[in-house]
Amino acid sequence: MQSIDEASAAFARVEDWIADYFRDTRRYPVLSRSRPGDLVAALPTHAPQDGEPFDAIFDDFERLIIPGITHWNHPRFFAYFAISSGRIAVLAEALAAALDVNAMLWRTSPAATELEDVTLDWLRLMLGLPDAFHGIVYDTASIGGFTALAAARESLGLDIRARGMAGRADLPALRVYLSPHTHSHIEKGAIALGVGRDNVVTIPADDDFAMIPAALAQAIDDDLAAGMRPMCAVATVGTTSTTSTDPVAQLREITAARNVWLHVDAAYGGPAAILPEFRWLLDGAHAADSIVVNPHKWMFVPVDLSVLYVRDLELLRRTFSLIPDILATPETDGRNYMDYGLQLGRRFRALKLWFVLRSYGVSGIQERLRAHIALAQELAGWIAREPGWEILAPHPLSVVCFRHVPAGARDEVAIDDHNLAIVDIINASGEAFMSSTRLLGRVVLRIAIGNERTTRDDVALVWDLLRAAAARTPAA
Amino acid sequence: MQSIDEASAAFARVEDWIADYFRDTRRYPVLSRSRPGDLVAALPTHAPQDGEPFDAIFDDFERLIIPGITHWNHPRFFAYFAISSGRIAVLAEALAAALDVNAMLWRTSPAATELEDVTLDWLRLMLGLPDAFHGIVYDTASIGGFTALAAARESLGLDIRARGMAGRADLPALRVYLSPHTHSHIEKGAIALGVGRDNVVTIPADDDFAMIPAALAQAIDDDLAAGMRPMCAVATVGTTSTTSTDPVAQLREITAARNVWLHVDAAYGGPAAILPEFRWLLDGAHAADSIVVNPHKWMFVPVDLSVLYVRDLELLRRTFSLIPDILATPETDGRNYMDYGLQLGRRFRALKLWFVLRSYGVSGIQERLRAHIALAQELAGWIAREPGWEILAPHPLSVVCFRHVPAGARDEVAIDDHNLAIVDIINASGEAFMSSTRLLGRVVLRIAIGNERTTRDDVALVWDLLRAAAARTPAA
Repeated sequence: MQSIDEASAAFARVEDWIADYFRDTRRYPVLSRSRPGDLVAALPTHAPQDGEPFDAIFDDFERLIIPGITHWNHPRFFAYFAISSGRIAVLAEALAAALDVNAMLWRTSPAATELEDVTLDWLRLMLGLPDAFHGIVYDTASIGGFTALAAARESLGLDIRARGMAGRADLPALRVYLSPHTHSHIEKGAIALGVGRDNVVTIPADDDFAMIPAALAQAIDDDLAAGMRPMCAVATVGTTSTTSTDPVAQLREITAARNVWLHVDAAYGGPAAILPEFRWLLDGAHAADSIVVNPHKWMFVPVDLSVLYVRDLELLRRTFSLIPDILATPETDGRNYMDYGLQLGRRFRALKLWFVLRSYGVSGIQERLRAHIALAQELAGWIAREPGWEILAPHPLSVVCFRHVPAGARDEVAIDDHNLAIVDIINASGEAFMSSTRLLGRVVLRIAIGNERTTRDDVALVWDLLRAAAARTPAA
Repeated sequence: MQSIDEASAAFARVEDWIADYFRDTRRYPVLSRSRPGDLVAALPTHAPQDGEPFDAIFDDFERLIIPGITHWNHPRFFAYFAISSGRIAVLAEALAAALDVNAMLWRTSPAATELEDVTLDWLRLMLGLPDAFHGIVYDTASIGGFTALAAARESLGLDIRARGMAGRADLPALRVYLSPHTHSHIEKGAIALGVGRDNVVTIPADDDFAMIPAALAQAIDDDLAAGMRPMCAVATVGTTSTTSTDPVAQLREITAARNVWLHVDAAYGGPAAILPEFRWLLDGAHAADSIVVNPHKWMFVPVDLSVLYVRDLELLRRTFSLIPDILATPETDGRNYMDYGLQLGRRFRALKLWFVLRSYGVSGIQERLRAHIALAQELAGWIAREPGWEILAPHPLSVVCFRHVPAGARDEVAIDDHNLAIVDIINASGEAFMSSTRLLGRVVLRIAIGNERTTRDDVALVWDLLRAAAARTPAA
């Protein structure tokens, strides 16, 4: 791809392919039908010695890669959290790759740093968060949550940055509190930070899958009495399994009274606060120490782009900053975001967020979120009215949890197997892709809506498939 | 950007812009001339209420964003490590954004997982590494290095994953060993993992800026005698300041005899081993526990794509794996890379590496690396022959460290200031961008070559600028 003509032809071919893909993603099976090893077997064992023409590479992309893709951008991808890439964001990612900026220092691209400041302040205002919060872009909520936990650890004043945690007689065990529905990245972060799984305390949830505040207060008090050091409690706005929301304001009261960091994971649920009618979702978060929101989940920005808002930016800097001579910069430069996290290298991610926010406008995003929530409510209505089907969790947002119970079935294990068989049938059909999870030990089916091209017909189709699958599946 | 026509016009405009950018990047000042706050002041304080047409957004991209860009893709970007984005990789990033795949589980895109396996095995063979190594893609070397350190900690068998590090009387201090030239991400990782800066032991380097093996042996033995626990030693192949390479084979002997993890940071230098004449660079690394190589540095893949090769993949899984119900998968699926790191979300990064490896071929990459090394050697020759200039470090690869000493100058502080003034003149010119660093306390000028479009004229131009700047700058 050395000549201008070849590059131009390549660009045109990719453009056509992408246009076609967005026009008719439904032609593909949502869940790839590959078997393990298929692609490995289809490709050579060595890189080519000499360069190949673009068309040969792209032919293989279409012939070998695409059949191995699970189509996250398919309107009937209902698994995990459904996402979608706004078309304009594809162009932003192409531009970011062409510029190939590393936004580690302000001077290594002022516009990347400042566009991050501007777009995250726009987003903060859209979410109704107070201006005490400063946002920084990270790749994933896993890293944002880890970063918040690291800052929480630093805030304890135990000199862990300098002295570490091992071999110190003066350190108490550090404790992290979460609910059975908190996302697993928090526990992973606690493991990495040397807190240890045994010190990750699971606070029980109520019937609506929300953390019980009194239980948190009790756990913290017990730990303090036992000489341990509470480090961080995590509240979730929109849990992964059911989209339940913890009572953040109450959890804040309890943690504030005990001087414990409160981190709010609003990765999925946060963007719903862009809707005035869901603004309350983040009310309690206004007093939190840190909040994660993922534009790459439900804001039409392709992976990866996760935002961490913190109140104490200087603490975050103290937690991570290390400046070797080669990265020293004048005092008069702007802020260097390499000082605020584990990663030195930082892609120009704000560009795609800026493109999407401007192209859709606040009203365009609101419209899409409302449509998804309405579709989920409509689906929940269908399920609730259908004999043999039951809704298993509140569904205020765009996810519905439910199951099928064959007439007369009593044995819970058999009912679980029956529902797992239903999911397998749906996913093998290629027509839709959905997840199952477990609530209170029972298998739960789960439909998540969040793709901007998902229509009522798509949801009706998966509902038809579900009923047909239930009828075909041996009863318990 | 709702209609097909608008999307097509937008794509065409971006295509033209990128083609133009690659054709004539030299028209831009390399280092942005923005002042802090310029972009923030130029943009509105709120997101637009209603969507805007693509052309308005793109006009602002050209008018407001581009002047704030420091052009990493400019052929006269000689700072840090010079990089460049292969043109074909831009298309791969656009396709990855359109597919919007999250390669967290094998089933959430078999092709993304397996293309990662295939391309990293290709790369392993290109580097001449034994098949005991298994590669995984991460975003940055910071994360790859952190992951290696986390696995090293887990390998100690101290039950840190479950019990954590704080409040345990049974844990010795954990020790990490590096040289004064090791990249700062290792120390940052050690801080995050609870090792603590005080337990990061700097082993002295020799006159060629390579770690002194006997000093490492002594430090480990002293720590063992003091009851501390050596956790990891880090050897670098191509350090950031001078591209020096530590004596990896000797460091491996010492660490192996003492059962200490050896991590090799070959982020920049590793790719040079693709050249038969530099294959020796990784010889000692064959027996290491882990190795980081960055295709996004010197392999024409845009940021971000860093590779960690490990020998004990199962250990890495044990270090990080946590599987919530919603992410449970059948045993018959392929490998789930979410289990091997901190991040759940994983972009489809292997696609751009595959495009570049196939488009360039091994020979195309070799050709580019050889050209860069030859340019650096030529520049070093010019500097060495010019009165008043001195080379300050060996320069086997594509980076040259040097300084100017005005006739009769004796005061080292004044000579430092003189050289910093030279860098400022170069960088303010917009014609080139370079770094300074410090070696043995003295300011050192540094030219890094690594952009595939850099020509001999570009290097000659910066050499002219350097001499002119030295002449203009008040002598010490």
